[in-house]
Amino acid sequence: MLAGIDTPTLLLDENKCKKNIQKIISKTTDNQLVIRPHFKTHQSHQVGRWFREAGVQQITVSSLRMATYFAEDGWDDITVAFPANILEIDRINTLARKVQLHLCIENLDSLDFLEQKLVAPVGLFIKVNAGNNRSGLGLDRLGLIDQMVDRLRSCNSLQFKGFLGHAGQSYKARSEEAILAAHQYSLDLMRQLGNRFRSTFPDLILSLGDTPTCSIAHDFDGIDEIRPGNFVYYDVTQSIIGSCNLNEVAVAMACPVVAKAPERNEVVLYGGGVHFSKDRVERADGTTIFGLLADWTDKGWQAIDEPNTYMRGLSQEHGVLRTTAERVAQIKIGDLLPILPVHSCMAADLMKEVRTLDGEVFSMLQFIK
Amino acid sequence: MLAGIDTPTLLLDENKCKKNIQKIISKTTDNQLVIRPHFKTHQSHQVGRWFREAGVQQITVSSLRMATYFAEDGWDDITVAFPANILEIDRINTLARKVQLHLCIENLDSLDFLEQKLVAPVGLFIKVNAGNNRSGLGLDRLGLIDQMVDRLRSCNSLQFKGFLGHAGQSYKARSEEAILAAHQYSLDLMRQLGNRFRSTFPDLILSLGDTPTCSIAHDFDGIDEIRPGNFVYYDVTQSIIGSCNLNEVAVAMACPVVAKAPERNEVVLYGGGVHFSKDRVERADGTTIFGLLADWTDKGWQAIDEPNTYMRGLSQEHGVLRTTAERVAQIKIGDLLPILPVHSCMAADLMKEVRTLDGEVFSMLQFIK
Repeated sequence: MLAGIDTPTLLLDENKCKKNIQKIISKTTDNQLVIRPHFKTHQSHQVGRWFREAGVQQITVSSLRMATYFAEDGWDDITVAFPANILEIDRINTLARKVQLHLCIENLDSLDFLEQKLVAPVGLFIKVNAGNNRSGLGLDRLGLIDQMVDRLRSCNSLQFKGFLGHAGQSYKARSEEAILAAHQYSLDLMRQLGNRFRSTFPDLILSLGDTPTCSIAHDFDGIDEIRPGNFVYYDVTQSIIGSCNLNEVAVAMACPVVAKAPERNEVVLYGGGVHFSKDRVERADGTTIFGLLADWTDKGWQAIDEPNTYMRGLSQEHGVLRTTAERVAQIKIGDLLPILPVHSCMAADLMKEVRTLDGEVFSMLQFIK
Repeated sequence: MLAGIDTPTLLLDENKCKKNIQKIISKTTDNQLVIRPHFKTHQSHQVGRWFREAGVQQITVSSLRMATYFAEDGWDDITVAFPANILEIDRINTLARKVQLHLCIENLDSLDFLEQKLVAPVGLFIKVNAGNNRSGLGLDRLGLIDQMVDRLRSCNSLQFKGFLGHAGQSYKARSEEAILAAHQYSLDLMRQLGNRFRSTFPDLILSLGDTPTCSIAHDFDGIDEIRPGNFVYYDVTQSIIGSCNLNEVAVAMACPVVAKAPERNEVVLYGGGVHFSKDRVERADGTTIFGLLADWTDKGWQAIDEPNTYMRGLSQEHGVLRTTAERVAQIKIGDLLPILPVHSCMAADLMKEVRTLDGEVFSMLQFIK
């Protein structure tokens, strides 16, 4: 399983991953929702194909380069869930000629620009602020929403599709109740927009998507489409939020042990910010952690959920694992330890490839500026 | 200067960078220190050549792949300032045959392993804990240090060179006084080790290196070599620590404006955690920031140091700039804004290339697992 691994390596448990995919698909079937999974987490043709085999036909990405990468693998219905970057009009036009491309905007300047410069039809979503206060228009800007919808009626290449929101505030939740409260906020917002516009636009699409609410909520009444992404791998943060349990986390970084500090109950791993990112999360006990240790098993790994065992810090290449005296004594220099990442999207983006437990390596979108 | 930029792009001000290099070199000349700069910040052959042109002959890196990359550009005296990863013995041997390679270790297991497996001579440093409590041996483990030094006398391929420390606690400093206190701690430690071992090893090398102390301190008496790295670019964190001023920061990310939220005095940029990393820093006023805005000038950029203007958050691709109502009104969709990174090492590592203000693009070490 670990043959040939000598530097930090992101391992993928194919079974856990496929179960995560199946679980979300069952939920969308039950709720008559379209699933348009966000592919920014895995950024991998091969993992994308597992979704296709499970019946998925439409995807979400976070950049035009990512859209191009997946279009190359045959995906032909792609939403870029990021406010349209008008500087990339050439990439937009190239893609729009090739696939059913959907963009989202939230201002008239972008609308004007796209209307003038597009050479092929693009589906357009208005980005709404589903409570996250990062981007998008809230109901306090209904005047602008009305204006944009009105303008879109007379656009040729911009085809108004509906509203797209992301209840990212669910990432601050630490209980099912708090996740559902975030969900309720965005449901209410979307339903109000539905009531206002569905009579004029019977094909209106109301699209929501974040892993915590899509993992936990059951009421999606009035919503047409969901776009979660992280669930494909999950991670330590999602387990702390309550979206998954630790044994649903489908990726772990195999990290070489390079030093031990028994006087501090610590082990130094080769595995730092350039592998995991510097993302961190606060546990219920107030400890800020940068990853969790697991034990190897015959079939992969099993998470260790003990208060005294966690990654306490990361620098560029170093990771410091704090654990018990017993574990420090058992761990040897040159061992490989499996560490569950705090944020799997960022770790995968940094590593640029994943390796299955069978040793198969899946390449991912490579960074090209 | 910005022609053709349509996605987040890391800009390098060559003049600022060369001044930063020259300033540290002057200090080492004044103090009769060897400078062995850490190249993990820039990871670029071209920036490395600027050091060579300034007289530098010896370098530090943080991984064996990085050592290989710089060996390919003619560097032949390289220290890997990271506890030796014994799993990479093949890479170690390949490099050791080609260049003067120095490793550092802090335990007998690694020593035993290397002694058995090395096929070419390697210089060896014992890693000491200069107060950072990340890795290395403190004076409380003098027994082990003695044992290791003793063992090293009879090793053939392992040539004992001295002690290597990193006063990384200086990153928590927020004043010159605090930086100098961190420096004093590591100076005292190194001087004690010098007193203990220099009579037996007259060529003993005492090596220290972190950007805050190397930027601010003037007393290096008894120290032989320094290994700072970040100073080549500096960043917002270093300016908050007090190592530099904001106009010495030699890199800025050009980020497209994709949305505006005037109701929150915010602007949404294309530039997120996959470009900057998720590193953050707390300002003196208690605000956690993820980057600082600058103004474009004829020759590059000029930092804006105003309490109400800062990057307040990053997600995967989004960056949220908080600023004044006046600035929000002036900023237009499609503008490129220069953002000074909180941590330049991590931003450079993510971007994999830098572009000078003349539009020249320098490639960097690409990530290969």
